[in-house]
Amino acid sequence: MTSEGAVVSNKQVIFKDYVSGFPKESDMYVTTTSTKLKVPEGSKAVLVKNLYLSCDPYMRGRMSNLASEDPQFSPFQPGSPIYGFVVAKVVDSGHPEFKKGDLVWGIIGWEEYSLITEPERLFRIPYTDVPLSYYTGLLGMPGITAYFGLTDICSPKEGERVYVSAASGAVGQLVGQFAKLMGCYVVGSAGSKEKVFPEGIDIYYENVGGKMLDAVLLNMRAHGRIAACGMISQYNLQQPEGRLQLTSIIYKRVRIQGFVAFDYFSQYSKFLDFVVPYIREGKITYVEDIAEGIESAPAALVGIFSGRNVGNK
Amino acid sequence: MTSEGAVVSNKQVIFKDYVSGFPKESDMYVTTTSTKLKVPEGSKAVLVKNLYLSCDPYMRGRMSNLASEDPQFSPFQPGSPIYGFVVAKVVDSGHPEFKKGDLVWGIIGWEEYSLITEPERLFRIPYTDVPLSYYTGLLGMPGITAYFGLTDICSPKEGERVYVSAASGAVGQLVGQFAKLMGCYVVGSAGSKEKVFPEGIDIYYENVGGKMLDAVLLNMRAHGRIAACGMISQYNLQQPEGRLQLTSIIYKRVRIQGFVAFDYFSQYSKFLDFVVPYIREGKITYVEDIAEGIESAPAALVGIFSGRNVGNK
Repeated sequence: MTSEGAVVSNKQVIFKDYVSGFPKESDMYVTTTSTKLKVPEGSKAVLVKNLYLSCDPYMRGRMSNLASEDPQFSPFQPGSPIYGFVVAKVVDSGHPEFKKGDLVWGIIGWEEYSLITEPERLFRIPYTDVPLSYYTGLLGMPGITAYFGLTDICSPKEGERVYVSAASGAVGQLVGQFAKLMGCYVVGSAGSKEKVFPEGIDIYYENVGGKMLDAVLLNMRAHGRIAACGMISQYNLQQPEGRLQLTSIIYKRVRIQGFVAFDYFSQYSKFLDFVVPYIREGKITYVEDIAEGIESAPAALVGIFSGRNVGNK
Repeated sequence: MTSEGAVVSNKQVIFKDYVSGFPKESDMYVTTTSTKLKVPEGSKAVLVKNLYLSCDPYMRGRMSNLASEDPQFSPFQPGSPIYGFVVAKVVDSGHPEFKKGDLVWGIIGWEEYSLITEPERLFRIPYTDVPLSYYTGLLGMPGITAYFGLTDICSPKEGERVYVSAASGAVGQLVGQFAKLMGCYVVGSAGSKEKVFPEGIDIYYENVGGKMLDAVLLNMRAHGRIAACGMISQYNLQQPEGRLQLTSIIYKRVRIQGFVAFDYFSQYSKFLDFVVPYIREGKITYVEDIAEGIESAPAALVGIFSGRNVGNK
């Protein structure tokens, strides 16, 4: 038990340097610093204790030294902690809207304790009758990605055929369940296997890219929609893979739409209205892959690019 | 002068056999048959004299033996005339809505005279104060393609940057002019040169595909739109070219939409309302490449795949 305002040790996962090719555990290291369990006098910051860190494929992009117009995609700083989606508990607060004990999620550093100077960007955790780790998955960014990518980008209609790649991943497993609840036929594939509907595909929820996308393009039906939120097969390549037969999208009137979950965060409550009743009725399940201890975070993050799905502290 | 009901000679351009790779003149031949200048007794058919035949890149697809769900894209029949967009004059009619002397355009065989059994699918020529050949271009399928691809697929906003490939082609030259009239900045490229805006591209009107598309993808701005109505660089290849760096569409929220002009033919009058006043004010120009005589049609069609733009009889 630490008293308020005490100085405690604070383990951090530090980003060593920019990565090319597959990331390795040695691209990160764990170090121990110390932190005071109190926000600076007069500041509106919030100090949190981090409970769950999420390993997400999009984080690979931030390990490369590529400029981005989006602050959400700007590179990690070598020598500073990695950051990603985190579930945390408020330890001390100078902000009128947060108080000690509040549960939040948002983009936070990979460390045991974080001082957050812009707490307005955190989400409050609305329900605690589900596992808190769900706010890095089903009820967090992956859930928002799955829901709005499917509904807003693909407008699924009853009876349509939905194909999901990386269907065992944090996002993919939800797309499939959401699409079924909306009356669609769903086929998912995991790994590199290509399974498609013999009758063709109305909606493809793209998580993989490369050869998988090419196989799907040839099987799209007229007026098909492809929601592209990730292409994990391509992130670690120097050259893009696959000679895409894009001409087929013309006469099939196929739409390919890139999208970013951050754009839908303002509609979080709409997503919760949809998903929470299904969770309570047991109609949605969610598989998590949880590793213990912040020391295991680098291995968990590296693991998602070699076939593992989600890793959390 | 031929009397009504007379039998006249009728030159036809016959499709010899399915093509792989670049089409050659010898994939077609001109033959002479005869036809009676009268529709069969009691039929609702229309007999037309063809005035202008249009050579369009999409016709390459019909020269391959590939099944299509769309009748508009089903393969030509070896041993039968090629068909495409044609401007024609009614010679005889069994249909109550057409009479001798009416001018029409639509998909018609490449021959001097054609008996049309489904005249409902023809369009009447609404204005004759413009060159009749325009109904195979500016006021025909290419114009419809340019207009609806730009407006319906790309929703151009004033000040946006529009890039057009194959900008000297039948469609490309119109996209550029339409976009300028809508207040956009336009850059066009012809041939294989890649010229892009240093500040990036909001709208790309895709006629080329392959390496051109890849270069553009890397230069798209956030929320950019790509209207894909053709990829002429790819039509004659056995394998698609270019390793497309599609991952960039995700974080840039780019939309790629394939579309087919046929889907907009029902909105022809809306397009005319837009374009005809500009033509009359001299604010739209249109460059045509007209070859004389049906015997020159095979060379004209082959020519569009080696750098020529439009060929008409």
